[in-house]
Amino acid sequence: MVNADEALELHKRYKGKIEILPKVRASTKEDLSIFYTPGVAYVTQAIKEDKEKSYVYTNRQNTIAIVTDGTRILGLGNVGPEAGMPVMEGKALLFKRLGGVDAVPLCIATTDESEIVKFVQNIAPSFGGINIEDIETPKAVRIVNRLTQLLDIPIFHDDQYGTATVVAAALLNALKLRNSKLEDVKIIINGAGSAGYGIFKLLTLMGARQVYVFDSQGLLYKGRKEHMNELKEEIANASPASSPLSLSEAVKGADVLIGVSTAGAFTKEMIKAMNPKPIVFALANPVPEIGYEEAKDAGAYVVATGRSDKPNQVNNLLVFPGVMRGLLDCGAKRVDYELLAHVAKALAKTVGRRLSPEFIIPSVSNDRDVIKIASTVASAVVENAVKRSIAKFNLDPAYERRNTVSILRRYLKIEKRIVGKLAPSS
Amino acid sequence: MVNADEALELHKRYKGKIEILPKVRASTKEDLSIFYTPGVAYVTQAIKEDKEKSYVYTNRQNTIAIVTDGTRILGLGNVGPEAGMPVMEGKALLFKRLGGVDAVPLCIATTDESEIVKFVQNIAPSFGGINIEDIETPKAVRIVNRLTQLLDIPIFHDDQYGTATVVAAALLNALKLRNSKLEDVKIIINGAGSAGYGIFKLLTLMGARQVYVFDSQGLLYKGRKEHMNELKEEIANASPASSPLSLSEAVKGADVLIGVSTAGAFTKEMIKAMNPKPIVFALANPVPEIGYEEAKDAGAYVVATGRSDKPNQVNNLLVFPGVMRGLLDCGAKRVDYELLAHVAKALAKTVGRRLSPEFIIPSVSNDRDVIKIASTVASAVVENAVKRSIAKFNLDPAYERRNTVSILRRYLKIEKRIVGKLAPSS
Repeated sequence: MVNADEALELHKRYKGKIEILPKVRASTKEDLSIFYTPGVAYVTQAIKEDKEKSYVYTNRQNTIAIVTDGTRILGLGNVGPEAGMPVMEGKALLFKRLGGVDAVPLCIATTDESEIVKFVQNIAPSFGGINIEDIETPKAVRIVNRLTQLLDIPIFHDDQYGTATVVAAALLNALKLRNSKLEDVKIIINGAGSAGYGIFKLLTLMGARQVYVFDSQGLLYKGRKEHMNELKEEIANASPASSPLSLSEAVKGADVLIGVSTAGAFTKEMIKAMNPKPIVFALANPVPEIGYEEAKDAGAYVVATGRSDKPNQVNNLLVFPGVMRGLLDCGAKRVDYELLAHVAKALAKTVGRRLSPEFIIPSVSNDRDVIKIASTVASAVVENAVKRSIAKFNLDPAYERRNTVSILRRYLKIEKRIVGKLAPSS
Repeated sequence: MVNADEALELHKRYKGKIEILPKVRASTKEDLSIFYTPGVAYVTQAIKEDKEKSYVYTNRQNTIAIVTDGTRILGLGNVGPEAGMPVMEGKALLFKRLGGVDAVPLCIATTDESEIVKFVQNIAPSFGGINIEDIETPKAVRIVNRLTQLLDIPIFHDDQYGTATVVAAALLNALKLRNSKLEDVKIIINGAGSAGYGIFKLLTLMGARQVYVFDSQGLLYKGRKEHMNELKEEIANASPASSPLSLSEAVKGADVLIGVSTAGAFTKEMIKAMNPKPIVFALANPVPEIGYEEAKDAGAYVVATGRSDKPNQVNNLLVFPGVMRGLLDCGAKRVDYELLAHVAKALAKTVGRRLSPEFIIPSVSNDRDVIKIASTVASAVVENAVKRSIAKFNLDPAYERRNTVSILRRYLKIEKRIVGKLAPSS
């Protein structure tokens, strides 16, 4: 385990985790006359005439912003923008290491929803994509939805989209082991924040029909009036239930129990009340809803947690670097759940013949493996873009920016390229 | 000369000029557990308890934002944010190469003054300083002044502060050659944008008493009512003149003629009308107010231009990387003209025994020399901070952040350190 002193000492020694470096030579007068004045004026003129050329002549094609207001940093709650920075720098580090993406952390001094939307609109011309991170729910989801409508660059929301995608991939594999279909199983999701909402949306889109979602107040059933917001309304309206049920009642006859809530929220009794071969994902971090061994003892067939010291770690690392790589490479203008479903299936397949109750999702312990997965994930994003673009006679506004067929050809080299972009381990 | 095809081709090949790279190792599970979860939570907690710790544990201590709204990019006017990016990436490249500063270009989609102020307030927690760049005047100066009041990080304005500092340094040396004092000479400044305003402010603070400033409408004299703004009011109120004069009239008996205006604004006749040994700075770019040879032919004693192919190139490169390096290193909370005056004197001294009418300011043709000057400039910033802090019993709010005496000691190593931060020429 990491101790506080070690983490503090190393952060102090390096004074941060990322830096900005030139990628062109700028030593001589001639270099400067090309990359600065007067040469740069021709480039400015070319982009002035056609804004899309900013993807050709600047690093916009590979640069995203990671935007947070500091209101929901890790499990620590509202710590403010300054204290969010070490986490966002860590995220930027991972975007580059694993996806070859240049990410700028922007921790901002406002928590006002419309001001955050305005802020992202204002920075949009400088970036090829945006990653909304660790903003409180439901504000975060509203911001993401609004920005997706307003802007023509992809808005990724790791807490919502990333978590949903890796959970869906893991669940597809767990169900395969059990010979079950998503359409047929009863699923309980405990937690209705960005993650719970995202999992609900994605699993529903992929075919799940019996999804019961709980928040801290209980079941979100049709007609519930207390402690609601628009996300919970959406969930409640789609619920199979039209009256309250306790979690202990709901798990009876359930096949899948997913926690994105708080430590200790699940009991052995709950698992024992589930259908045979129960699937339990206890994803609260660092302490899960129920421990891996405890869940196994209670009869769980497959258990996944967020912990790196147990089998089946559900980790967004498997998704966000590759998805952003793919989005940038195909010039996608937005992210949607159809895209994420495609990615989840591709991610599930990477497990291949290693599939077992102790291996439903790849491990992130080896960075080379994670980079390989990022390339598979990125390919899935581009494939989906190509497929949908062709299906719509190349008229899909989401993917019209570039010729998708040529992208797919070019894309065969992606893994090599991502690895090539890796920073030297220093 | 650079041709358009070469500049476009090279920008296309490299797809931008900067990238973001990890500066810590992040290969193993252990690395991630320190620099990402769970270790990063301790760092977040420490900054939550004391925001100033963001300068200790994150790259904030070395990171600035370059903010533009695209309204005054180079000589091209309002080209929009996307088209501003190649220039801002070039600037970021130079901040790193010459000053070891990590600079994030942010080209934003609003030209509204209060929205730009709000924007910079919002990003402030992520940065150790801000460089306002290529925003139209007088809006830019108002934004800089407002932000200097509002924020406790330094706001640098290269168009105003950088130009003024390098002009003042060059002028000090030119006057020295002529055995004149700033207090005694008659100075004409043609141009009342950010640069003209900055030069007026700095020379006045340094002791100049007869400064006549012209805008495109003529002299800014006491009582002028037409085509005014608050910067021009300030200049006009300090003018020795209380009635209009043409430029041709004003140059009679003048010692110094400075142009930050437009190509061809000066004539030989104007120079001939000046006092003996006239000093002419024709800084319009790329075509000066009067050509170097033409000015010499007309009898100018010292001529400076913005051109790299003539002696005495007045180039902000000599100032902005070093000033920002120094500001970050001493934790300065603001920039003012007193600081710039100190820097101008230090910069002037770097010419040393090479001083001649053809060498009043160092050349930027060799990047090692420029880096050396950046370290002198940075030292001057820190020296000034220390001096003022001690003079005020360490109570100057501008420099209270760190113990300035220990900074000065530490600072002896600065040149080595900047060189150490250089990117490899690839």
